[in-house]
Amino acid sequence: MFAPQGIAVVGASRSPGKLGAVLARSLSGFGGHLALVNSRDETMYDSVRAAAAAGPVDLAMICVPASACSAVLAEAAAARVRAAVVCGGGFAEAGGEGVDHQRQLAKIVAETGIRLLGPNTSGFLAPHAGVTASFVPGVAEVRPGRVAVVAASGGVNHALAFLLAEAGHGLSLAAGLGNAVDVTAPDVLDHLADDADTAAVALHVESVADGPRLVASVCRLSARKPVVALVVGQHDVGAFAASHTGALATSWRTTRAALAQAGAVLVDDERELVDAVGALSVTRLPPGADPGVGVVTAQAGPGLLLLDDLRGRRARVPELAESTQDTLATLLPPLTYQRNPVDTGRPGPELGRVLATVAADPGVDVLAGYALHEPDAVDLPGALREASGIPVVFGVGGTGPAVTATRLALLDAGIAVAADPRGVAAAVGALLGDARRQAVPPALETRDQAPVVAAGSYDEHQAKQVLGRLGVTTMPGRACANRAEAHAAFDAVGGPVAVKILDAAILHKTEVGGVHLGVASHAELDQALDRLPGARRFLVEAMAPPGVDLVLGARRDPVFGPVLLLGLGGTTVEALADVAIRLAPVSLAEAAAMPGELAGRALLSGWRGGPELDTAELAGVAAGLGDLLVANPGLAEIEVNPLRLTHDGLVALDAVILSKEADDAHPDQ
Amino acid sequence: MFAPQGIAVVGASRSPGKLGAVLARSLSGFGGHLALVNSRDETMYDSVRAAAAAGPVDLAMICVPASACSAVLAEAAAARVRAAVVCGGGFAEAGGEGVDHQRQLAKIVAETGIRLLGPNTSGFLAPHAGVTASFVPGVAEVRPGRVAVVAASGGVNHALAFLLAEAGHGLSLAAGLGNAVDVTAPDVLDHLADDADTAAVALHVESVADGPRLVASVCRLSARKPVVALVVGQHDVGAFAASHTGALATSWRTTRAALAQAGAVLVDDERELVDAVGALSVTRLPPGADPGVGVVTAQAGPGLLLLDDLRGRRARVPELAESTQDTLATLLPPLTYQRNPVDTGRPGPELGRVLATVAADPGVDVLAGYALHEPDAVDLPGALREASGIPVVFGVGGTGPAVTATRLALLDAGIAVAADPRGVAAAVGALLGDARRQAVPPALETRDQAPVVAAGSYDEHQAKQVLGRLGVTTMPGRACANRAEAHAAFDAVGGPVAVKILDAAILHKTEVGGVHLGVASHAELDQALDRLPGARRFLVEAMAPPGVDLVLGARRDPVFGPVLLLGLGGTTVEALADVAIRLAPVSLAEAAAMPGELAGRALLSGWRGGPELDTAELAGVAAGLGDLLVANPGLAEIEVNPLRLTHDGLVALDAVILSKEADDAHPDQ
Repeated sequence: MFAPQGIAVVGASRSPGKLGAVLARSLSGFGGHLALVNSRDETMYDSVRAAAAAGPVDLAMICVPASACSAVLAEAAAARVRAAVVCGGGFAEAGGEGVDHQRQLAKIVAETGIRLLGPNTSGFLAPHAGVTASFVPGVAEVRPGRVAVVAASGGVNHALAFLLAEAGHGLSLAAGLGNAVDVTAPDVLDHLADDADTAAVALHVESVADGPRLVASVCRLSARKPVVALVVGQHDVGAFAASHTGALATSWRTTRAALAQAGAVLVDDERELVDAVGALSVTRLPPGADPGVGVVTAQAGPGLLLLDDLRGRRARVPELAESTQDTLATLLPPLTYQRNPVDTGRPGPELGRVLATVAADPGVDVLAGYALHEPDAVDLPGALREASGIPVVFGVGGTGPAVTATRLALLDAGIAVAADPRGVAAAVGALLGDARRQAVPPALETRDQAPVVAAGSYDEHQAKQVLGRLGVTTMPGRACANRAEAHAAFDAVGGPVAVKILDAAILHKTEVGGVHLGVASHAELDQALDRLPGARRFLVEAMAPPGVDLVLGARRDPVFGPVLLLGLGGTTVEALADVAIRLAPVSLAEAAAMPGELAGRALLSGWRGGPELDTAELAGVAAGLGDLLVANPGLAEIEVNPLRLTHDGLVALDAVILSKEADDAHPDQ
Repeated sequence: MFAPQGIAVVGASRSPGKLGAVLARSLSGFGGHLALVNSRDETMYDSVRAAAAAGPVDLAMICVPASACSAVLAEAAAARVRAAVVCGGGFAEAGGEGVDHQRQLAKIVAETGIRLLGPNTSGFLAPHAGVTASFVPGVAEVRPGRVAVVAASGGVNHALAFLLAEAGHGLSLAAGLGNAVDVTAPDVLDHLADDADTAAVALHVESVADGPRLVASVCRLSARKPVVALVVGQHDVGAFAASHTGALATSWRTTRAALAQAGAVLVDDERELVDAVGALSVTRLPPGADPGVGVVTAQAGPGLLLLDDLRGRRARVPELAESTQDTLATLLPPLTYQRNPVDTGRPGPELGRVLATVAADPGVDVLAGYALHEPDAVDLPGALREASGIPVVFGVGGTGPAVTATRLALLDAGIAVAADPRGVAAAVGALLGDARRQAVPPALETRDQAPVVAAGSYDEHQAKQVLGRLGVTTMPGRACANRAEAHAAFDAVGGPVAVKILDAAILHKTEVGGVHLGVASHAELDQALDRLPGARRFLVEAMAPPGVDLVLGARRDPVFGPVLLLGLGGTTVEALADVAIRLAPVSLAEAAAMPGELAGRALLSGWRGGPELDTAELAGVAAGLGDLLVANPGLAEIEVNPLRLTHDGLVALDAVILSKEADDAHPDQ
């Protein structure tokens, strides 16, 4: 499909403005056999068969109304054409008859094996092959290059292709998937893993049909080249999104978490997508958990914007080594800041040596720089040539063709460029994210298999026994069936205790008066037992020491399967929706990174004399929970709430295990 | 300074690369009297006096070493030159002798009245006057236009000027302030208020020397034209920032709050600054608390990115009226989404009528649109001409000169443009922010004067009595000096009660065991009194009902003076630094907007059956606290923590009033 020897445009037209006409024009630069097909136009072939008889046809661009597409597709398949694109809309996204039209296309794909891109897309660009199989004008001007775009939407595919072109990047491939009846994002990603022309991939996601398949493809691809992902739908866009693709919206958070775990670098908007994938297509850091950034600026003000932005991305900008600072002192006037950032004052011929000096600092793994374009004062490409050895991102401020030429010269020299400090920061952020991703390999360590447990109902005590088998700490306690057992338990555990009803059917024990805390004497125990609502079994458990409450859960996501969720406890945090997500099973390194993603992470680092989280301990608990869900298909959900961080480590204070049947029986859950 | 008849370049040079040479070249387009001064070059004037004798000289551009600048400045003043720019560095920001050089400049300014821009700046551009008083090449290519830039840094001034030029905007003025010995941001802002060429102002702030002066200037200016502000320093950049300007870093949050309250629209980075000020320079919404956005897109995918981004900016995208939808149904194929966003499917000649129809919807106050550039399918400028009557922001995707020309044509027609969905969303966000700002006038309503209270120490009871005079609700309680009074108070108040030590010297009562809650009987009261640490006075107070705890404080900011701070209570929120800030005195409308800025605002809107905040009630309490601080210069700080939101309204559960002396006595506060 992406490297055809011949293309047939079916429904080609000579009326400007018509899809078929624009497409024929877009393809006019194609060097292979280009066959225009329209049975009502004598100057064209009257069928795909006729076109294929005249020369090789590997790809059919189908520009006929939705109702006629399946017949053309069948005709193409019969003529041994191996791939087709249906550009127009009017299929599943339109509802009604469109659903049938789409089903027809799927049927022919299944029967004939022809590969189909679309429907409801605006095609693809493969500039190296000279194929601009798109009806959007201007695409023929997009240069061949090293960035690939895989976009859910044809419109976004083109928007990104043009933004990349404006930023000086050429493309290896840009494909918009549309309704993705046959060719899906994973298909194109798999293709790109082996595509020698592609150095970095931009992935745009609206919804995910097959989560595990997408994750597997991104894993494979990101092991070979960087993948930058933009996921739409942070906010409520469901109704419009559904109308667009006919698919249900996938959870934005879960999709992002899954893609990151599969090795993708995440960005928040299309501008940063361009900054990120553009930078990663020309340079890349080796794996590293926390690489150091050296900042060199020819003007202090933009340097300050850059530093502020880098700090916001949690980039480490370390103080330079003394020897580095000594060398810089010989190069720069004393008035400038030289510890990192390094401010050269005015740009001058010494810039090259300054850059080389900072690049050689043992703590610096990547250079971030900015200068206004002042060719009389400094030859930027020449200066940057001196800073070889580590990746460089450089911002060049200015306007006009000379500035553009300088930026392109830097790109050609393997230096990532930007027009402004934010662009530099976004590119550096992407390089760092990519280095961090590489340092956390997605492969799982070998570890003990999770226990297989019975499906069915679990009360708190039973759930905690399962946690115990995973090595999760709980408070000493006993399940009791009567008052005598409770008093014996009180003596064994030692007061004060918590007294809690045990009933798998009661999910909110506190709300029904089923929890009594701080029970300090036998008399209080009797009072507490009197007040438990019709309890047959109850738990007498030692009170936990104070600490910071977390919530850790394992659930089944309808798209991605088992996922882990970590948040801070309490209503406030819930209202802020501050949660870290991972697919299960999870590697210990991945799980250990979860708390660092929480906005409230400061609370876990000894805030005001409080306890400090051992991320390895948390990782063990989280991985265990995930493993348990994976090993037990009958379980629907496990939640430890709260999982308390104490000065002695993590303690599970309450736990819920829901089986799939139980889950169905509690629709409010 | 900004519209001189004649300019002298002192220290002009013929060696390319030298400051004086570049500057002379930048000014070569100046139509007035341009006099090059260099006593060591026979082809130039040998003094400012000689230059001024040959023709009018209003402005001296001083390009000599720092140590020689003050002499040249004095010479210029003596030659009746009224304004000067010192471009070079080596002054206060460099420390050492530089501080003296800067002091010398200030002295001559004070003695002679000559106005001085800089030192340590890269000059200014006034394209309408043909004055490109900057040593950065390329500035001469910046077109005259309607956007003004006022930047703390010369480098940022140029970076912004170039970014604006790239986005198609011309400039009325771009001034970089540098060390701002004489001409400060407020001076330039005051100038711009009366500048007919300027339609919108971009303000870049690194630190603020005189908070009230800046606020007053922004207030005056924003009443006449939109001001968009970018404040640097969200993250820790203090050391580098100090090296840059020699000034202490101003609080980022407080500066942002002050500028917003003064009427500025805030942005987060330089790209959004360009989007925002560019849009506001061509179009503007009338005042409105929550204008409605109509979204029209020719491609669903980019439209989804746009909608997602708009929702993130809390833009309201209302469902279109039925009559609007009926009209759209006659214009568009049934497959497209038409409720808002409106997706036209493929762009076609009907786009103009679609835009006009959405623009005419009674709920739509501003149009946001996006289309790939497809001139064969639709004439965008023509289509957008049909949508007159309300402001429009339109994104045009594509690359190449034809696309640039289309964007410029739209700009000329008063339509804000962008290259991508994010740019459209940022521009719309700025228009909405500007409309909201206009709807909350900065003027204060007339209200009762705050009581004048004694300076000195306040214990909790005394502090609550002051709150009572402001009309703030507290729980019924009594200050007691002995056990008998306490028991009488218990009977009068009714149990359970809180018992708290009263001692103005103890700021953290709980930490010293000075607070006992839920005291339910006379016996428990005796126990509690026994455990109070050496109390001479204590408070017996009714227990408060449950609710959501807020923290409300009034403090004196060293730069801006009295400020109000509102946050949610509790450690978690503190760790998240989620706080809304206003300068005091504050209008009730401004104060009522504070809770809406909190990330955790959902907790104040009946979260899980909890109480709902009456923002007017909160505004009254906040305004009262601010007024109190303003009316009592002897007070340093007032904090109500917690201020509890209950189902019956707000209740102050604890209060601290610190006088300036007391503040000094407690350095840990």
